[in-house]
Order: sequence, then structure tokens, then C-alpha cells
Amino acid sequence: MKKSVGAKTLPLPAPVWVVGTYDAAGRANVMTASWVGICCSKPPCVAVSLRKATYSYGNIIARQAFTICVPSEQYIKTTDYWGIASGRDVDKFAKVGLNAVASDLVDAPYVEEFPVVMECKVIHTIEIGSHTQFIGEILDIKIEEAILGPAGSPDVEKLRLFVLLDGYRGIGEYLGEAFSIGFVPI
Amino acid sequence: MKKSVGAKTLPLPAPVWVVGTYDAAGRANVMTASWVGICCSKPPCVAVSLRKATYSYGNIIARQAFTICVPSEQYIKTTDYWGIASGRDVDKFAKVGLNAVASDLVDAPYVEEFPVVMECKVIHTIEIGSHTQFIGEILDIKIEEAILGPAGSPDVEKLRLFVLLDGYRGIGEYLGEAFSIGFVPI
Repeated sequence: MKKSVGAKTLPLPAPVWVVGTYDAAGRANVMTASWVGICCSKPPCVAVSLRKATYSYGNIIARQAFTICVPSEQYIKTTDYWGIASGRDVDKFAKVGLNAVASDLVDAPYVEEFPVVMECKVIHTIEIGSHTQFIGEILDIKIEEAILGPAGSPDVEKLRLFVLLDGYRGIGEYLGEAFSIGFVPI
Repeated sequence: MKKSVGAKTLPLPAPVWVVGTYDAAGRANVMTASWVGICCSKPPCVAVSLRKATYSYGNIIARQAFTICVPSEQYIKTTDYWGIASGRDVDKFAKVGLNAVASDLVDAPYVEEFPVVMECKVIHTIEIGSHTQFIGEILDIKIEEAILGPAGSPDVEKLRLFVLLDGYRGIGEYLGEAFSIGFVPI
């Protein structure tokens, strides 16, 4: 039996990604976001939904670009902090001692210390309600060499990703190959 | 040092959700999708990107509704199968012996056996490229009573969710509370 719990958002799970932008003064800002995900394969695109009240919203509107910086577990407290503080009030990089690197592809900075970065230019802006969704075309992905696995993907064991699912949680055991284990359905 | 790996999609991670729809004949169909996620809080919305070639695409265009059915690990092979086969060729429910239930809120079916269901009506349709993104307003969430935790959310330990991250992987250990552990940044 299923029970109705009403209309709400329930991350099952949601990614925990950091959005990098420049403000009007050219200062690098970062903001943690979970209403995000991949939304197209060709061109490769991500969707990022932000509230208009965020400092990052205005930055993206002005620059039409952002980065997605994917944190590993060692940066979990910094990542959480970057979802709490506002770039209006504080230099979020200086506060935690991490470094901003200018993308050479888009008008946005990324977090030098984070293991994976996607550089994105805005191709659609959709007003939904409390949130505005920016669809960014991924122009390049950069991966820290120390965690690079075969086939141009990160080594998941070294990456130590975490997700939003009733708090932050790590990634568990390998369960099977996609588009493969279902060929003989139970 | 970071290495460029080019423009592509890299799930870090992506959810593994099943989209429920009715076809023109009123037959229930399901399709597994990972280019999905929450995209707005008020109204609560999910974004689901599908290729036009999928059977589900036409169903959603015609009915302007879908469900998101969230599978637990015990249904991982069925879920993978539902991302491989097409509803044009096969009755995906009959093939695996699971049951379709008609939503009483939207014109779409859901998977009776899956632990969590979101019932959605389409409020935006965005052509991106290879994929069309449907933004669906969540009208209700229904959770299997046996896995219901406090505060109207599923008990994550009982839910046994999995994600797409270099294959399918389970959820790992609890790492901390969101909007909390970062109040004292390192």
C-alpha cells in the first residue's frame, strides 16, 4: 500500500555540484546546487536551477556562462558552506583557502582543487517558478590527472563523490553494468 | 593538473528513474531515464529529457503527463531492461510480471511494486538537441508504507536506491547533514 505525502521535492538522490561564476566586478564566486543534472547528449548539456535571489543568478544572467565543479568527499564541509553563505557578503574562495582558475573556454571560474570541472555556456533560460533553469552546453570537461581512469572518465573509487539523499551520503558498491544486466529480465 | 577529456556527458552521478506513460491505445508503458532531476521547489517540479525516437516521447506529447517511479535495488535488472526494450515492440509490464496502476491525478500509470512514485503534469517542453526536456509539476508523491520514515520521506536504508555512475552503484554511508556541517568551514 502506498501513502500520499503530498506535492514536494524529494531528492532520490540529487547530485551535489558547485556552480562557478564571475560577478560584475570580475570576482570569482561559487554556489552549491542540487537541482541539477544532465539534460541532453548532443550537444552535451547540463541543467542548473537557481533562485533569483542568489548572487550566482545575476552572474549567470550577465555572463551567460558557468562552470560545474564536482566536489569529492574531502571537500564536503566547504561544499556545504558554499550552499549556505552568499557571495554578496563574502569571498567564498578566500574564506576556505581554495583557488579560482579562469576557464579559457567560457567566462567563468572553476575550483582548482576539485577533481572534475565542466565548462558551460548558457543556451536556454527557463522561468519555472521559485527557480530559473539554466541549460548550459558543456564545451569541455577537465579531470584531475591523479583520478583519471580509462576511457576519459574519472576512477569512481578515487573520486569519492557524494550525493544529497536525506543528508549527504557517499557512493556504495558496484551493482552492475548499465544497458547490459537487463538483457535477460527476471 | 587537470586533463581535458572533451565535450561529453558524464553522470556524476545521475539518478535512475522510470517514466510511466500511456500510449495512444491506453496501454501502460515504462522507460528508464537518467537525464532527469528536480528543477524547481515551488511548484515542485522534475525535469525529464528523452529522445524523440522513444515511445515515451510521443506518449508524453499526447497526454501531457507522466509519472516518475523510483526503483529499489531488487528491481535493478527490470529497470535496466526497461531502458533497453521499447514499448513499441513489447508490453514491458507483462514481460517482467509487474503491475501498472492508473494515477488518479494525472493521465499516466505507475509501477505498483516500486517504492516511490511522483505524479506529474507537463508544464514546459524544451527542445534542446538530441533530447527534449519535459518539465513536470509534481502533483503528489506516493510512498510504500513499509519504507516510510519520519517526516513523510522514505527511510533511505530501507529504500535501497541506486544511481548511474560508471555502471549502477548503491548508496554509501551517511556523511553529514546538509545546510549544517558547513557552518564552520575548514
